[in-house]
Amino acid sequence: MTWRARLLALDGLTPQLGDADRLVWTTLADAPDGAELVFLGLDDGRPCFAAIPAAGDAAPRLANPQLWGLMARLPAADLALYGGARSLIDWHARHRFCAQCGGDTRLAKGGWQRDCGACGAQHFPRTDPVTIMLVEYRGRLLLGRGLGWGEGRYSALAGFVEPGESLEEAVAREVLEETGVTVPSATVRYIASQPWPFPSQLMIGCHVRASNDAITLDTTELADARWFSREDVATALAGKGPFTAPPQQAIAHHLLHWWLNQPATA
Amino acid sequence: MTWRARLLALDGLTPQLGDADRLVWTTLADAPDGAELVFLGLDDGRPCFAAIPAAGDAAPRLANPQLWGLMARLPAADLALYGGARSLIDWHARHRFCAQCGGDTRLAKGGWQRDCGACGAQHFPRTDPVTIMLVEYRGRLLLGRGLGWGEGRYSALAGFVEPGESLEEAVAREVLEETGVTVPSATVRYIASQPWPFPSQLMIGCHVRASNDAITLDTTELADARWFSREDVATALAGKGPFTAPPQQAIAHHLLHWWLNQPATA
Repeated sequence: MTWRARLLALDGLTPQLGDADRLVWTTLADAPDGAELVFLGLDDGRPCFAAIPAAGDAAPRLANPQLWGLMARLPAADLALYGGARSLIDWHARHRFCAQCGGDTRLAKGGWQRDCGACGAQHFPRTDPVTIMLVEYRGRLLLGRGLGWGEGRYSALAGFVEPGESLEEAVAREVLEETGVTVPSATVRYIASQPWPFPSQLMIGCHVRASNDAITLDTTELADARWFSREDVATALAGKGPFTAPPQQAIAHHLLHWWLNQPATA
Repeated sequence: MTWRARLLALDGLTPQLGDADRLVWTTLADAPDGAELVFLGLDDGRPCFAAIPAAGDAAPRLANPQLWGLMARLPAADLALYGGARSLIDWHARHRFCAQCGGDTRLAKGGWQRDCGACGAQHFPRTDPVTIMLVEYRGRLLLGRGLGWGEGRYSALAGFVEPGESLEEAVAREVLEETGVTVPSATVRYIASQPWPFPSQLMIGCHVRASNDAITLDTTELADARWFSREDVATALAGKGPFTAPPQQAIAHHLLHWWLNQPATA
């Protein structure tokens, strides 16, 4: 029976964890009646699917500590599979209608497309590029605390790339808007990227050098922004303050480690 | 009267060119009755707007040689402004309805958002990350010819980043799918990015090293793919064959020049 298709076991968008913290798979017989299925790929020759939840949320659900806990336990391959599946089915659940004409859409191409039955428009899952940047000035890093974040939690500044911008322009605009700090886009250096399925970001991690360190906070975007030394960052990553570092699953955590491994500069 | 708001003069999505090949600006009085206006920013203290076309196309219009000709004449600042404006108004024209519930949406936040009057969902303009990559093997570059392209025209391979992928994974998957060539994602190096408003791509230019040079073409994606030497690329960029290089406005053109300026490697 190894030819049999598998269905990813989910509670809404939340993964179920089984033996050895692996994802749980059931059979297509467990899919709700009439549920649309997204094809995730072949695993060991067996087609893998996920069912689209009956109704999506008007506001996509964000990551939360409980989900982070589950994700931290998943093996890397399962985490990647879950992230892609989650983005896809959440997009489908929130895109049952045609933005062009308001008509009904239906799943096409195994779930990598939706087609409008009325006007024929084709719609594709979206992936939103987000720049996330380590801003450095004389050996210190600029980190911010988002609105509503727990006291003491700081992470790299980040923001969506807007239409008509390059990555470098997005980095410079976002840092200036949020903190008033000028970063020449010519100093932007790409480091690493990571998909982040809440709901469908592509996090693009960069390093950039600031021209000054005077902070003018945009309080509609950030609760605080502050410069931290290498020692601050090292002790925070070790869980010993002076701030709470981003969790291990976040690309910001990886970027901070990358920075500590770079030679110190003035 | 320098306080007066300005309206970008467009014929549908096509720019009008005026003196010195600059964009043409008129006043808000020239906006069609009831047209929604997108705020583009301040220029010299004057608010700048573009009007959303009455109806969008089900299939977004792609770049064409005539438009490329116009874009090649625009000064850099005008080209950037036009590109961002075009992406935005085209997105609005194609997103008058709520994908969540099918209800009517209306422009919000100066055109950087649409809100649904029925279910309250908020929708944001999309920017689609696309990887475009120079694939190198023993000093030669792998370039492809798209379906329907003019005979002899070759450019860098490219493809949309899919949900759940990093940039590096997208590069490796796309090259393997289209040409059968294996490129380890660990060899991906970021070079440059460029917005491409047809309709709303963010082109992310990379260089990557192949593990082999045997091509197995996916003929549903490409008409041809071929390895070219440095001399081939240099003469093509000079307009002297053996292939037709991508036009100056395309990031692929810039990437090829970048490659020629790198030290040759085995």
